[in-house]
Amino acid sequence: MKKSLGPNTLAQPTPVWLVGAFDEAGQPNLATVAWGGICCSKPPCVSVALRPATHSHDSILDRKAFTVNVATEGFARQADFCGIASGRDTDKFAATGLTPVKSELVDAPYVEQFPLILECRLQQSVAVGGHTLFIGEIMDVKADKSVLSPEGYPHIEKVRPIIFTPVLRNYHGVGGYLGQAFSIGKELK
Amino acid sequence: MKKSLGPNTLAQPTPVWLVGAFDEAGQPNLATVAWGGICCSKPPCVSVALRPATHSHDSILDRKAFTVNVATEGFARQADFCGIASGRDTDKFAATGLTPVKSELVDAPYVEQFPLILECRLQQSVAVGGHTLFIGEIMDVKADKSVLSPEGYPHIEKVRPIIFTPVLRNYHGVGGYLGQAFSIGKELK
Repeated sequence: MKKSLGPNTLAQPTPVWLVGAFDEAGQPNLATVAWGGICCSKPPCVSVALRPATHSHDSILDRKAFTVNVATEGFARQADFCGIASGRDTDKFAATGLTPVKSELVDAPYVEQFPLILECRLQQSVAVGGHTLFIGEIMDVKADKSVLSPEGYPHIEKVRPIIFTPVLRNYHGVGGYLGQAFSIGKELK
Repeated sequence: MKKSLGPNTLAQPTPVWLVGAFDEAGQPNLATVAWGGICCSKPPCVSVALRPATHSHDSILDRKAFTVNVATEGFARQADFCGIASGRDTDKFAATGLTPVKSELVDAPYVEQFPLILECRLQQSVAVGGHTLFIGEIMDVKADKSVLSPEGYPHIEKVRPIIFTPVLRNYHGVGGYLGQAFSIGKELK
């Protein structure tokens, strides 16, 4: 027998991503989001949700671009700070010691120190309710060589992304390997 | 210096959610997705992306409802199976031994054995490319009492959701606690 918890954003896991954008003054800004996910394979697209009141919201609409910077264990404090402060009155890059790099592909900055980043061109924005869902086409993914697997892709045990629990507001790391997808279920066939 | 990996769905972390829906014959079906995320706070909404070719795609459009069943470590094989088989020729509930429960709130089934489920009414569907993004308003969240924190919310260390790594196709569990969100960043202020 399950307990009803009411309408709430209690999904698990959710990511911790820093959304990079240039504001109207050309200032690079970062917004920390947990509301987002991959939303298409071809073309590869990712979505992030922001409230219209946030400083980054109009920046993304103006520049039609954003980056997704995957927050990792070593940058948990910086990631959290970027979800507390506002770009309206804070230079978050300066405050956190992070370095903005202007993307050569899209009109947005990414974080030099983060090992995995996605450069996105705004495909469409969708009004969902109190949030706007920005859907970005992933034009390129850039990663530090130190986090790549032998096959050349980012390995989660090397990237060490942060996981956020909504409502309880906990940050966790990634745990042990459980198995290979599209494989371990075959035994049930 | 980062390495360019090209346009790809290399975000981390991504969830492993089983999307529950009734097909046109009234048969309960489950589709495993990693493309999804929370997309609004007020009202609480969650998005999941499916290709039009999937059996669940039209079911969701017809019934205007779906459930999100959070796959957990103990059900990794069942979750993976539901991403390999098709509801067109397989009764996935029967094949996995999972039990469908008809939601009393929305026209969709959820998985009795899964400790955390979201019941969603379709708010809108968005064509993104090769996928359709289904945005559902979360009408209720139901959870087993055994996974609740003292505050009454699902604790990720008890739920033990699975994390999926795109492209490398690895499943991982949740690791250690890193800190409290909206708190650990304050020291940078």
